[in-house]
Amino acid sequence: MVDLGERSYPIYIGAGLLERGDLLIRHIRGARVAIVTNETVASLYLETLRVSLGNIASDVFTMPDGEAHKNLATYTEIMDFLLSHRHERTTTLIALGGGVVGDITGFAAATYQRGVEFLQIPTTLLAQVDSSVGGKTAVNHPSGKNMIGAFYQPRCVIADMDVLGTLAKREYAAGLAEVVKYGMIWDAEFFEWLEGSAAALNAREGDALTYAVEASCRVKAQVVASDETERGLRAILNFGHTFGHALETVTRYERYLHGEAVAIGMVMAARASVAYGTLDDNAVERLKSLLASLGLPVTAQSVDREALREAMGMDKKVVGGRLRLVLSRDVGSVFVSDDFQSSIIDAVLTD
Amino acid sequence: MVDLGERSYPIYIGAGLLERGDLLIRHIRGARVAIVTNETVASLYLETLRVSLGNIASDVFTMPDGEAHKNLATYTEIMDFLLSHRHERTTTLIALGGGVVGDITGFAAATYQRGVEFLQIPTTLLAQVDSSVGGKTAVNHPSGKNMIGAFYQPRCVIADMDVLGTLAKREYAAGLAEVVKYGMIWDAEFFEWLEGSAAALNAREGDALTYAVEASCRVKAQVVASDETERGLRAILNFGHTFGHALETVTRYERYLHGEAVAIGMVMAARASVAYGTLDDNAVERLKSLLASLGLPVTAQSVDREALREAMGMDKKVVGGRLRLVLSRDVGSVFVSDDFQSSIIDAVLTD
Repeated sequence: MVDLGERSYPIYIGAGLLERGDLLIRHIRGARVAIVTNETVASLYLETLRVSLGNIASDVFTMPDGEAHKNLATYTEIMDFLLSHRHERTTTLIALGGGVVGDITGFAAATYQRGVEFLQIPTTLLAQVDSSVGGKTAVNHPSGKNMIGAFYQPRCVIADMDVLGTLAKREYAAGLAEVVKYGMIWDAEFFEWLEGSAAALNAREGDALTYAVEASCRVKAQVVASDETERGLRAILNFGHTFGHALETVTRYERYLHGEAVAIGMVMAARASVAYGTLDDNAVERLKSLLASLGLPVTAQSVDREALREAMGMDKKVVGGRLRLVLSRDVGSVFVSDDFQSSIIDAVLTD
Repeated sequence: MVDLGERSYPIYIGAGLLERGDLLIRHIRGARVAIVTNETVASLYLETLRVSLGNIASDVFTMPDGEAHKNLATYTEIMDFLLSHRHERTTTLIALGGGVVGDITGFAAATYQRGVEFLQIPTTLLAQVDSSVGGKTAVNHPSGKNMIGAFYQPRCVIADMDVLGTLAKREYAAGLAEVVKYGMIWDAEFFEWLEGSAAALNAREGDALTYAVEASCRVKAQVVASDETERGLRAILNFGHTFGHALETVTRYERYLHGEAVAIGMVMAARASVAYGTLDDNAVERLKSLLASLGLPVTAQSVDREALREAMGMDKKVVGGRLRLVLSRDVGSVFVSDDFQSSIIDAVLTD
């Protein structure tokens, strides 16, 4: 449960949930829904979802796969689709897919006829532990990620563990990057559990996976509940993301999956924290070692460092012309600072 | 003051307010603003506004005049503009113009980096009494008006009576249509005052104008405060708008100003109310007579009635496939109904 007063909503985590029509239907007010999904996910899970919806009429908008399509052009197509199918203010949008589908569907729901309801059915590990929880919706702009969007909460999130079995190895690992983040920013005990559970997680063992997703969602929900629109604490969720987003921008969202960029970004943020003087080298090594054991990259190869610096200047977390960074003081503990020498960034960018 | 808890904001109404830098600056948090305006308004008031802003740095986005430009294309240009000028989350957008500028600027503010602050400086009578108050922001879609948008409140509204002196006669009269609406839906006494003040209003006498704007904003603020996101009571503000929007759609936003379409739409709604059995002919005559005395049209000439019917099917106020209409039971009193024979609409559309 994400506790946001009248905008509170439940997160269901477990196996076989996509077949649970009762869970879905409980959160649909009208007689119609519009499902937004992508080509890959549709071929795997669309039929199951439609069977679970029973008598509720569904239209399906299928977008191409990939972050490159999370833009105003696809958003405009969704608006055209909803209007041409005459969806009304009582409609419900269902996001069936990964973070791209969830973010753009949420933004569509936030702005279609000034706001309709939506459900999140995240089908990647990354989306289950990150983008589907917290109400951040957005599309990208050529000059930066998530530059256009809204804070808008779903009616519920349904995270079915069974869908993770079909994920490509690389995409699955990318999701684990955010799981590691929750340990790193909030919960040292969970971080230690992860260090001891790498093999089980790599094997996608059901119990380990359910625990990892629950623990991750719990951290995220606590942080979001205390700061819905990112005025303060919520910024800590961006640990590794300022560097990671810049990395994605300069590589035009083509080279790295988001989670991979975040993995590298977290190592950069940890190294900046060492340069800042709050973190010791041992913690950086533990972070690198855990990420590597989960099949994640920990350094960026042949990236233009000047372009990276430039891209960081455009990041949304810039306040009043100064860059704000989430830095670490230990495994399980981070803080936000805009009071640092640019040399701590140089130290990270020039190796 | 519009009372919406933590989203409450003041409406300032009076002469010479555009020169009141103190009013403006009090509601600007950061060191930068972006002004969105149009060509006509910029030539008249932009310089005054920038002087009032004093040390606050302003970038100006000037859009072409007219409802035809309140679309996703212009919205996208505003996003590009803000990003290329590196506006951050602490920026403030200022809408300097009529309803088109206010609506699109509000939507831009609602969605730029998931929401930045904005101020409304409405420069038409229509915008002062209607679109600038209530937090509805939107752009149009080829299949209907305001189909894409958000509920998003400004930090304040500054309605300067002096700017109304330069309004074209037709545009000024269009604003009076919404003023009449407030009397018709909520305040019979105000309606009577309007009947006795047509000459003063047509002469744009300062005292009459200030009273008319204050009374109008008071009605709107009361209704909005009781129903921010249009779940119930707020629907009464749409009196005349279902017909009016349809009229604008079928004439492709070219023939009528919004207020003119609303004037005709209110007469249609009143006549539908007579057909429904709740209103007497005398009230329709009073409405037509008041609108005509203020220089407004009261019937639509040579409009395709079938196209109009079709356009009404697409209106946002449709719930569960049934059309909801705001009908009248007397001057100063309306109600919402979806329980009527289509013959009451036929009666209006077939004359």
